[in-house]
This record gives sequence, structure tokens and C-alpha cells, in this order.
Amino acid sequence: MISSKNNSKIKGIKKLLSSAKERRVRGLFVIEGIRLVKEAPPEMVEQLYLSESLFRSGTFETDFYNNMEVVSDEVFQSVSDTVTPQGALALVRQPSWSLDPSELGDGCRLLLLDDIQDPGNLGTMIRTAEAAGVTMVVMSEGCADIFNPKVIRSTMGSIFRVPFVVDDLVSVVEALKAEGVIVYGAALDDAVDLRETEKAEKLAIVIGNEGNGISKGVLNSVSGKIRIPMEGRVESLNAAVSAALLLYYFRFFS
Amino acid sequence: MISSKNNSKIKGIKKLLSSAKERRVRGLFVIEGIRLVKEAPPEMVEQLYLSESLFRSGTFETDFYNNMEVVSDEVFQSVSDTVTPQGALALVRQPSWSLDPSELGDGCRLLLLDDIQDPGNLGTMIRTAEAAGVTMVVMSEGCADIFNPKVIRSTMGSIFRVPFVVDDLVSVVEALKAEGVIVYGAALDDAVDLRETEKAEKLAIVIGNEGNGISKGVLNSVSGKIRIPMEGRVESLNAAVSAALLLYYFRFFS
Repeated sequence: MISSKNNSKIKGIKKLLSSAKERRVRGLFVIEGIRLVKEAPPEMVEQLYLSESLFRSGTFETDFYNNMEVVSDEVFQSVSDTVTPQGALALVRQPSWSLDPSELGDGCRLLLLDDIQDPGNLGTMIRTAEAAGVTMVVMSEGCADIFNPKVIRSTMGSIFRVPFVVDDLVSVVEALKAEGVIVYGAALDDAVDLRETEKAEKLAIVIGNEGNGISKGVLNSVSGKIRIPMEGRVESLNAAVSAALLLYYFRFFS
Repeated sequence: MISSKNNSKIKGIKKLLSSAKERRVRGLFVIEGIRLVKEAPPEMVEQLYLSESLFRSGTFETDFYNNMEVVSDEVFQSVSDTVTPQGALALVRQPSWSLDPSELGDGCRLLLLDDIQDPGNLGTMIRTAEAAGVTMVVMSEGCADIFNPKVIRSTMGSIFRVPFVVDDLVSVVEALKAEGVIVYGAALDDAVDLRETEKAEKLAIVIGNEGNGISKGVLNSVSGKIRIPMEGRVESLNAAVSAALLLYYFRFFS
């Protein structure tokens, strides 16, 4: 049992939690909580850590995992994000997806995210994307790190089920259009009400940065700019709300 | 000019920022940022504070305000929530709305919030409510304090334009139903797909707590339970996303 905060594995977890670079170099990320750990495909779990209490309770089935370590409650608390940790934490291998626009069939729907900064927004968008049946999420290099613990938590497990890549959005938009995908950018100015758009067999939606919207280069590449109707004196909607409304409109409400 | 962090007004601002009780007792709340301060109706502004830099720049029009104080940049920084403050902050009187169900006309739409805990979610819902033309937001006593600085920031100014009250939701639901308002609760079990609901002339939607959904008493009172369609293995959506989808569906997409 690990009972020292100075244990190298414990230090390693803390580094993975705090450093995007460390996560990239090691190709791992950290998940915490019984439910989230159980949602991770066991073959992706590099290392499972259980608190002494949870291990002794016998309520957490460990048969599926190759590498399991028990950690004293005190040390577990020291790496946990929560005040009363549930006692389950895992290092998970980063999934590696790829996007081949020529393989996208009719009915595909992509969500392109341009420099989304807020981890909660990003995670919520991944969660909503799964619910709306999104084929793939494409993030610009300027997006928050998807393996940031706050993003992971906000995805509520969708991180394991929604394919995603990080790529240059202008190139991706051009490649998608070449394959017949209609790429709509969510915008406020010179934009068409989404209810007036034609139905697209292959569809991609671009959501821009919380403060600045979609960057110029990307906006110049899209097939069309669309806007969400708004009453009152609201100038814009929250980015995750905008993504949800657009994805749901095209999937379920049109 | 206020140049000491121990100034009683400065201490008062800090207390208002950190304590819901203090805000209730004084009937005030704090807003920060040039844009947000400008969105506040001047007659609601009890006291305006400008940083020395902003005041000297002459770019902030102060004619509309009765009470203005200049604060040294260093002291302003000490009360600011942000790393690089814009230099405008105001104490604002809490608006006081009331709900009279007998006065609700056709086309009214209410948003009822049952113990929404996350300040960002709550603020985002107020912002979205304005965009969807909501008549009034009713919050249960267990909701986060609407005058919490994080809520205020997330509303992006809608706090000044959307009527809201805090009340017992069961009583409100009963009173609304008595006036012919259809009250739908967002639920996961035993619920009807929202696309299969009948159009309501007077409509209220209840959104429940992030973890536990709508409380039993309220759920037993609603006219009907409705659910948002979901693909994949998603068990639920973020509360602010759910509110947005329901409000927009009934307002714009049905």
C-alpha cells in the first residue's frame, strides 16, 4: 500500500493533474470518481488506484484491471480534487482518433471548436455532442486541453465515447467542403437564421471562442454563417448553449 | 480619493462580494466591469467606484450617477475579481419583482428552477431566459444566490432585464396551474419526448438540481414530465443546456 505523499507514483499523478505538457508527454490523463472510472474501458486504464477504505469495502470490482494499487486514505485525499473523495482514481491512455473526410457518409455531423477557452464549456460540449449523435469533434490548437481534469469532469464520461481530434480548423473546413460537407459557422453578423437554412446530408458546425467568436480565417472558409434567434437585448449566448441549440436543431428539431 | 484598503467602504464591498447574508441585509449587490456597469440602469446604482486610471482617462461617462468615488488603482485591484481590472465597479440595489399568476396572459413562458447549485449554470440560465423571451424566472430557496458575483457575471447583463423571484416551487406550480398554465418538468424517467407535447398558450418549465433532478414534491405537482431526446450513452445533459433546449424548442423550434 502507498502510504507516503512523496511516493513517486503519487507525485506523478499530481503532475498529470496540473500539467498539460506532462499529460502530452506521457500520453495519459487522470480520472477520478467511482462512476467515471467504471465508464473508462478497462483496456485504456494504465493504472487503477483505490483508497484503502474503498478497497477494503470490497464494493469496487477490480478483476478487469491489470494494474491496481491501494493508497492510504490520507494520501488519496492529498491527490483528490474533492473534499470527500470516493476513493477511485485511474491513469488512462489518451485515445487517438483520426479524421478522414473522404470516409464521412450521409448523416455525418461534426462539431468544430475554435479556441474554446473555458474547460467547463468544452466538457459540456463533448457531453452534448454525444447526446446529439455527433460523429466527431474537431478542436483548434487554441482550445483548452481536453485532458484537463475540469474538462474531463464536465464530459460526464462522454470523453470515452465521442471521437475527437485537434487540428488546424481552416484546413479541416476546406477538406470537409471538398467532400461535400456543408460547414456552418455560428455568427452574429451577416448571418442567416438557422431555421432558414437548407437541410444538409453532411453537416459540420463551427463554434467560436467565448469572447471573440470564430476567428477570421475560419469564418472566411465556412459554407455559410448562421445565427440563433434571440429576443430581448441579449447580444450572444453562452458557447456551450449555442453548440447545444445548433446540434439539437439540426438533429432533432428541424 | 480612497487610497487605503482599510477604508470602510472598501471593506463593505469585500463583504458584499463574499457574503450572501450581507447582500440580503443591505439589499445590494456588486457588479464589475465597464460593460456590465453601463448596462445597469443608473437609478439602480447606489454607488459607483472608478479606479484612478479609468477616471483620469475620461472615457467613462459619470454624469448619470449620483454617487461616484475614485479609488487608487492598488486599492481597486484589491477588491477586484480579475487580474487586470477595468476599473469600474458599482453597488446596485437588488430589484424586487413579484409574481401574480392571475395576471399572466397568453404567450407567457416561465422558467422554474429547483435547487440549481452551480452559479455558472444559474447565470447562464438567466441569460438564455432573456434570449428565449421568458416572462419570469422563479427560483426555489435552495438555488444558489442570484446576487453571487459568479452568477452576475454569467448573466452578462440579463440580471437587469429578466424578472425573477425566489419562492416555494410547489405553491407556485399549484398557483400557475390554477390559472391555466401548463407546467412541464424536465425529467428522465416516465417522461414524454418534448416533441410529442401539445402546444401550450401559457407555459412553465421546471429544471431540477444538477445531480438529483426535480425534487419529489415539485415533480408530483407538475402537469407533465417531459424529456429531451438523447443519443449515445449519455444519461443526462448539463442543467443550463437542458433549460436552453426546452426554452428554445417551445419558443422557436416547434
